[in-house]
Amino acid sequence: MARTKRAGRRTGNPDTKAEILAAARRLFAEGSFEAVSMRRIATEAGVDPSLIHHYFGSKDDLFLAAIELPMDPAPEVAAVLKAGGVEGAGERLMTAFVAIWDGPHQDKLLAVVRTSLSKPAMSFVLRQLFEHRIVKTVEDVLGDQVDRIPVRASFIASQVFGLVVARYILKLEPVASLSSSELAETIGPTIDRYLTMPVEHLAKD
Amino acid sequence: MARTKRAGRRTGNPDTKAEILAAARRLFAEGSFEAVSMRRIATEAGVDPSLIHHYFGSKDDLFLAAIELPMDPAPEVAAVLKAGGVEGAGERLMTAFVAIWDGPHQDKLLAVVRTSLSKPAMSFVLRQLFEHRIVKTVEDVLGDQVDRIPVRASFIASQVFGLVVARYILKLEPVASLSSSELAETIGPTIDRYLTMPVEHLAKD
Repeated sequence: MARTKRAGRRTGNPDTKAEILAAARRLFAEGSFEAVSMRRIATEAGVDPSLIHHYFGSKDDLFLAAIELPMDPAPEVAAVLKAGGVEGAGERLMTAFVAIWDGPHQDKLLAVVRTSLSKPAMSFVLRQLFEHRIVKTVEDVLGDQVDRIPVRASFIASQVFGLVVARYILKLEPVASLSSSELAETIGPTIDRYLTMPVEHLAKD
Repeated sequence: MARTKRAGRRTGNPDTKAEILAAARRLFAEGSFEAVSMRRIATEAGVDPSLIHHYFGSKDDLFLAAIELPMDPAPEVAAVLKAGGVEGAGERLMTAFVAIWDGPHQDKLLAVVRTSLSKPAMSFVLRQLFEHRIVKTVEDVLGDQVDRIPVRASFIASQVFGLVVARYILKLEPVASLSSSELAETIGPTIDRYLTMPVEHLAKD
């Protein structure tokens, strides 16, 4: 059991988790992921920081819980990129991406995307996820092989989010009903091009 | 002044246009654009068909009014494709697309997209627009040069809608702040590839 300075008022309160999540959403929406400390979230929620660790673990885990994402995409991206490096990365990423989206989390993922796209204040969700989980993960794995990863990642995101829109939201045919391997074969090379095209002349990131 | 069979009840009613638009939205959401006749919309709205022609012109115009699109994208697409054919079409389409989206209609376009992506019942809007205006236009202009345009168009849509999401909704950098010519140079080749890649082995459209 976590210690708390205000145990009498907060510990055991069934709303405490909800208050922590609400405070985290407010602060993550205002500032960058890195600028928001666990201590500040604790102060905002009126609880001891140890209670956040107790309920949610790390700041990463708290962030994923705050945006209600059913899974953490970062380890998946890291595993796919490590298994072969840049060569053929586009096909492997598309295969893994479609497998996740076609799987049991589809409804929850769609709910996160719909909310993020329709409410301007919630767009921070996908942007933070992209900037602080995905881009960092790609930099960790491919940083010594590929230059200016944030630039390339924003182009890759434009294709990947577009696939979500076309296949899962608008259900445009035939993209909506093609197999994972057909999408990997057709869209994979787009991602490979964004990973390897010259970008040094584009505006600085 | 348009004639109407129920002039006493409907003509001059300030709500008549709104009723016609509401009826059109209900019917377009249920069936395909082509299956919905002007006569059926008139019956649903309780007005004479001539009144719809009087207020809205053609069925195309009524559709655009019903989905509140500030402009008709089809003539723009036709003009861009006619000016040069398949060669370099991707760059020209991206240049025109970004010019429209960066222009005075941006807020209204964003409202249509946000609504279409967040409300499942409204996704018909973008799907119908895509299938019955854009794909048909591309087929009219490039049909004798390019095979299986509906298949290619759904891939192009996945990149173009993704650019809208990344640049205008999530505002991912640097895609959000690159110039029209930088986006044409980087994303144009993706569209060109979707226009020319082999697709005969993909699922039938």
